Amino acid sequence: MIPDRDAITQARARIAGHVRQTPVLQTDLPGLPAMAFKLENTQVTGSFKPRGAFNTLLSGPVPGAGVVAASGGNHGAAVAYAARALGHPAHIFVPEYAGPAKIALIAATGARLTVSPGSYQDSLDLALAYGAATGAMQIHAYDAPATVAGQGTLFAEWDDQGLQADTVLIAVGGGGLIAGALAWWGQPDAAGRRVVAVEPELAPTLHMALRHGPATEVEVGGIAANALGARRIGAMCHDLARAQAITSLLVPDAAIAAAQRLLWDGLRQWVEPAGATALAALTSGAYVPARDERVAVLICGANPAPDPFG
Amino acid sequence: MIPDRDAITQARARIAGHVRQTPVLQTDLPGLPAMAFKLENTQVTGSFKPRGAFNTLLSGPVPGAGVVAASGGNHGAAVAYAARALGHPAHIFVPEYAGPAKIALIAATGARLTVSPGSYQDSLDLALAYGAATGAMQIHAYDAPATVAGQGTLFAEWDDQGLQADTVLIAVGGGGLIAGALAWWGQPDAAGRRVVAVEPELAPTLHMALRHGPATEVEVGGIAANALGARRIGAMCHDLARAQAITSLLVPDAAIAAAQRLLWDGLRQWVEPAGATALAALTSGAYVPARDERVAVLICGANPAPDPFG
Repeated sequence: MIPDRDAITQARARIAGHVRQTPVLQTDLPGLPAMAFKLENTQVTGSFKPRGAFNTLLSGPVPGAGVVAASGGNHGAAVAYAARALGHPAHIFVPEYAGPAKIALIAATGARLTVSPGSYQDSLDLALAYGAATGAMQIHAYDAPATVAGQGTLFAEWDDQGLQADTVLIAVGGGGLIAGALAWWGQPDAAGRRVVAVEPELAPTLHMALRHGPATEVEVGGIAANALGARRIGAMCHDLARAQAITSLLVPDAAIAAAQRLLWDGLRQWVEPAGATALAALTSGAYVPARDERVAVLICGANPAPDPFG
Repeated sequence: MIPDRDAITQARARIAGHVRQTPVLQTDLPGLPAMAFKLENTQVTGSFKPRGAFNTLLSGPVPGAGVVAASGGNHGAAVAYAARALGHPAHIFVPEYAGPAKIALIAATGARLTVSPGSYQDSLDLALAYGAATGAMQIHAYDAPATVAGQGTLFAEWDDQGLQADTVLIAVGGGGLIAGALAWWGQPDAAGRRVVAVEPELAPTLHMALRHGPATEVEVGGIAANALGARRIGAMCHDLARAQAITSLLVPDAAIAAAQRLLWDGLRQWVEPAGATALAALTSGAYVPARDERVAVLICGANPAPDPFG
């Protein structure tokens, strides 16, 4: 069931002591109009994912076997962090391409960690088998109501911070984050605000699902693959995106890399490719704002590899 | 003449279209109590310095010969940026130890740039000679009323952002930034707020001046030297600090490096040593807050070398 605004409001109260209200700022960057940014890269564990993880763990009883999750890295780090904070054992399954920074982040929590060759799907299969065998609670990375409601708290928070925007650009992987936005705002919302989905050309999961149907599977690759490389879009994301007829854009990896650089040069924010993907829609010209259109960009994650300490 | 609150309020109006309102957040970091942070590292050019530079350039006529400044790097980048934005030629003098990231930042503005061996003082001598020979306007890095009033705008802004703090930790080099804080707030202010100065042990400029007199010169070195390595404290800073009897603390380079790492691990902010020096007072134990004391930390600059792009 897709969470409604009440579910998101309740999630916000539930997770309040555990996640940060992340900062916002309004600025222009070279070659672009003034925009609103939300620096969710400063969230605990370096991405928005703890919002959904804490909401899930705090929504009901957690079995003695603890929790299990499959992840490209960020969701796993969030689940491991939340489990430790709340005193539950956690077992995280990630593919090797999660990369050293994210794998180290998970390992540092003390969670059990299984790194395997292959894709996110392979890790998910292992996680499902582990959950079935042990009774551990499965925390899906993007397609579960408590996850989506948790991610939706970001947008409720942004509203409270005075967001003034006609258009909000959001990167899409499996779709949990943008589903939270669509569940919170609706499209277009009372203020006429529109959400725009941005995906790498090499991981066009939502884009192809909107064309060819929700069960469409795509090949995924490219520089943002470990964060945005779900092969199949979450059902909740798909249904919300279709019902609300949102715009879905694709950007090439080169534009993502350029946006990543621009975030450093212009804002001194060093983020992973996924964190720069929404901005890449503007720098690449995939999205051209109208005159006087107020644009907002969500910087959804940091966690680059290598990190500044190698 | 030390600027008063009116001068800072006027400076704020003057520079409003040219600098960012930088974001704030409230959070805890591992091992530390919850604190307020201001991310001035996201300011244009990566440090607080443009506040003073724009205020100076916008406070009166600029000669046709333009502007000249000596700098350890950040002030030079700010003056070069502000001069370009306002259409004035600029000549910046920096010592080699400004480092490649800051030198590249200045060069990218198109300013004339003279990099010389030796110290900041050597660059200052060259800048003074250049100004005398050409009539270019000298913009001092920290000890001029328009510079201090500009830096003071940061604290007026922070108040407007709802700062709740009993204690504000601020790194000190030549003292322009903290002079702005002391000029804005007074000590203790109406709310009982106290500013605490933090310097590297290897660049104890204010600390030694408060002990031995305003003309004291110190040896400077260590990892924050190019940002905090003034050999002699600014007179305005000294006079304010003495009159208001502020606390002045020293931290070892190892603590600064640890705080730099903590800002990455905990907040995903990658900053230069100077930007982490205020936080180092807490992580090193040089400053131990009382129970329930509300502490704020100013992250005053980014611009690490190497930057993420080498």
